[in-house]
Amino acid sequence: MSTPTRRIAVILGVGPGLSASIAKKLSSTHSLLLLSRSLPDSLPKLNLPSSIPKENILALSSDGSSSSLKKAFEDLQKHWPESRVDVGIYNVNEKFEMKDFLDKSESEIRSGLETGVVGGWNLSQSILPLFLKNEPDSETGAKGVLLFTGATMSIKAGAKFSSLAPGMFARRALSQSLAREFGPKGVHVGHVIIDGIINTERVKGMMGEDKGDKRLDPDDIATTYLALVNQRRSAWTQELDIRPDCESW
Amino acid sequence: MSTPTRRIAVILGVGPGLSASIAKKLSSTHSLLLLSRSLPDSLPKLNLPSSIPKENILALSSDGSSSSLKKAFEDLQKHWPESRVDVGIYNVNEKFEMKDFLDKSESEIRSGLETGVVGGWNLSQSILPLFLKNEPDSETGAKGVLLFTGATMSIKAGAKFSSLAPGMFARRALSQSLAREFGPKGVHVGHVIIDGIINTERVKGMMGEDKGDKRLDPDDIATTYLALVNQRRSAWTQELDIRPDCESW
Amino acid sequence: MSTPTRRIAVILGVGPGLSASIAKKLSSTHSLLLLSRSLPDSLPKLNLPSSIPKENILALSSDGSSSSLKKAFEDLQKHWPESRVDVGIYNVNEKFEMKDFLDKSESEIRSGLETGVVGGWNLSQSILPLFLKNEPDSETGAKGVLLFTGATMSIKAGAKFSSLAPGMFARRALSQSLAREFGPKGVHVGHVIIDGIINTERVKGMMGEDKGDKRLDPDDIATTYLALVNQRRSAWTQELDIRPDCESW
Amino acid sequence: MSTPTRRIAVILGVGPGLSASIAKKLSSTHSLLLLSRSLPDSLPKLNLPSSIPKENILALSSDGSSSSLKKAFEDLQKHWPESRVDVGIYNVNEKFEMKDFLDKSESEIRSGLETGVVGGWNLSQSILPLFLKNEPDSETGAKGVLLFTGATMSIKAGAKFSSLAPGMFARRALSQSLAREFGPKGVHVGHVIIDGIINTERVKGMMGEDKGDKRLDPDDIATTYLALVNQRRSAWTQELDIRPDCESW
Repeated sequence: MSTPTRRIAVILGVGPGLSASIAKKLSSTHSLLLLSRSLPDSLPKLNLPSSIPKENILALSSDGSSSSLKKAFEDLQKHWPESRVDVGIYNVNEKFEMKDFLDKSESEIRSGLETGVVGGWNLSQSILPLFLKNEPDSETGAKGVLLFTGATMSIKAGAKFSSLAPGMFARRALSQSLAREFGPKGVHVGHVIIDGIINTERVKGMMGEDKGDKRLDPDDIATTYLALVNQRRSAWTQELDIRPDCESW
Repeated sequence: MSTPTRRIAVILGVGPGLSASIAKKLSSTHSLLLLSRSLPDSLPKLNLPSSIPKENILALSSDGSSSSLKKAFEDLQKHWPESRVDVGIYNVNEKFEMKDFLDKSESEIRSGLETGVVGGWNLSQSILPLFLKNEPDSETGAKGVLLFTGATMSIKAGAKFSSLAPGMFARRALSQSLAREFGPKGVHVGHVIIDGIINTERVKGMMGEDKGDKRLDPDDIATTYLALVNQRRSAWTQELDIRPDCESW
Repeated sequence: MSTPTRRIAVILGVGPGLSASIAKKLSSTHSLLLLSRSLPDSLPKLNLPSSIPKENILALSSDGSSSSLKKAFEDLQKHWPESRVDVGIYNVNEKFEMKDFLDKSESEIRSGLETGVVGGWNLSQSILPLFLKNEPDSETGAKGVLLFTGATMSIKAGAKFSSLAPGMFARRALSQSLAREFGPKGVHVGHVIIDGIINTERVKGMMGEDKGDKRLDPDDIATTYLALVNQRRSAWTQELDIRPDCESW
Repeated sequence: MSTPTRRIAVILGVGPGLSASIAKKLSSTHSLLLLSRSLPDSLPKLNLPSSIPKENILALSSDGSSSSLKKAFEDLQKHWPESRVDVGIYNVNEKFEMKDFLDKSESEIRSGLETGVVGGWNLSQSILPLFLKNEPDSETGAKGVLLFTGATMSIKAGAKFSSLAPGMFARRALSQSLAREFGPKGVHVGHVIIDGIINTERVKGMMGEDKGDKRLDPDDIATTYLALVNQRRSAWTQELDIRPDCESW
């Protein structure tokens, strides 16, 4: 990746876990538009390394709604007018609550669908037109790369996941449909099924340190995201799974 | 199936195609609560056979919203106070329009999700508590049977299906999660993947008569729905596909 | 099903469990060619009901090899020269032994493949030419129905199933390929994924009586096989799963 | 990867296409044991770059049989007595011939199974005990990495693939079972589904040059194999797909 213009990666759903690790990896080639509900206030909590120049980060608030994303992409355009947006990551998670179906309300399935797929739809609507304007990358041949984070519940709907699995199945469907439509137009769309618990600070706080490598290290996951971003267009991955060696599945 | 109380089957998404065929098959053992946006006005268009006693049919309007379903189940309770609701069919279809992703609006994915899964969620919330109050059926051992109609796009998200496939993937997830949660409680939850074009009056009007058995006969599909309803609890099917012999897949 | 000629169903892999139940269900419309390694000696152990006329049963030995099957179909032809073979069931099971991969020998994977798919290949090679000569059934439109019994390990290869799952994945592939090739020629090919423990006499002997309906009743499974045999050609099922209500999956 | 001992990668099924590309990528860190029916005679046809020191390549004949592999691993041990075998690639392809099922013979399904899974079984039996003796790699934490090459027909059995798809479904099952058994023992087992035509010299000879990037470049696929080899044990991929941007699927 070696054009003179500033390259931008957009990450929606940024907390101190996986997204921060992906941001770190991408920061050597890309400036970052970081989006989440709690940004920009929560930026310090991401613990991004000081080696990333502050002027390469734009952190804005977005709840995944089309209006908030429209605003964010307008701000992006003003902030870095001469730039090439060519990476998008949809990494929003819904909080999981263990509950029987009949104890759940309609608002919970609706929330699961917003997080699961509507936010990803809105990000795609905002970012794909920008991708299509790009020249193919000189290395990969891609006009852009759009990655969706999935989970076990993206392919298997467990008994307690009635309000979450539908949104995640839907996210997977969206990624597949977009891959089929936009692949021939030069856009790489991928879906990463993360099977296991990511060893974030929050998880360590709740469950203690990982003993025996039973959790996914967010940096190790991010390495695979980067490998996907760098795949050349003759050999793109649409879907892969990732899990710790010890994970039972 | 041989208890003295009136048995009720509820079908949501009733048009003159598959649902009418399912209603016919079920009518020999069940009274019918038929629900759709256009009911009760559209009842004559269903061409239900005159052999079904009119007093065994209750046709009400519902758009799948929780409020309309709450009202419908209250009306049901008043209409047939001594009854056993033990079959539910979620058969709502979203109209398909061939369109590129970037020509679609957020309202289209939202509509796809409402039809795909939210209506099914609401039906499940209304009907499962009724099922759980039932004694197990003396033949099948089931307290109730809840079937969801799927399609090819429930498992494969084609390029033009970006606003429809997510909702149908989500519907499949909901059926799977409910099967896992409610199976051990005596409720049979199934998902039927219909792969091909159903030979409804509407389809015949648009595409002419079927030559060479290339389309699914709604009565033949309904036979399989009935077989699922009658499965005994030691051997329940959660998912099956149905397609015409000539279908390429 | 109502032609005057004698109809024949062929079952390969006949023991006192599922196959005996399927044989019973089919016996009201079909004469039976029963095949297994231990037949005809083991015929009494099948406990077939005395209501099946003895002259409607032909029990022969076959280990699934092409030579044994060739012989069996020649004997069938001599025994019932005027007949219509229109049902085939491949129901051979490999014995499962809990073992680590490195404690298994090449003969075990080979045996798993023979049982899993080669026997099914050979049965298909023998029976499909007979199907193709048939007129379509007046009820179903099928020239023949070929069903393969699968298991959980047909779609999920567990840690201890290294020598068994490959053959069962392969069986599923064969059924799928044949469905695609022979569907348009009027032959219904299906695959039944049985997920759980079948409550056979052998299982009851080893594990005691089933308490709480945790096992599959072979008669209940057979009901679904019969439903598949009777599906009309506009709406054929290629694959379905069956499990007890209590099964965790 | 930085231990002082010589590291060995074993590739079974080596022709001038994908395997040569994988060999090239691995050659910077590994010495190579290359195995195929036609080796060592066909070694010059692989067009391996002269930058790979000849003394880092050992090319031996193997047809995937356990005896040939036993011999090859003994020769390996003699040739490089102080070494660490930590990569294995099973990349054997069966030639595809377009044929109806009833025009195929039993030898064709048998051949498909040998190539599809028995050779992979034998390689695994030879190489896994060597992996288990290794210390975990200081970078990845893996004692070894075993990758299987799959294809579209590994997950979808087309009408003309009756003798090939079973073996490839079986290969996928083997990889899955081994991943579950050996993951917790420190061995990374992966399966790569290659969907499309690889642009090898043979393909170019038959079909001409690729116009419009419709084929998979073997070097681009090999990049992904290398990424898998280098994944750290907290985040291993068991399965991924690869296809050209233009591939319809």
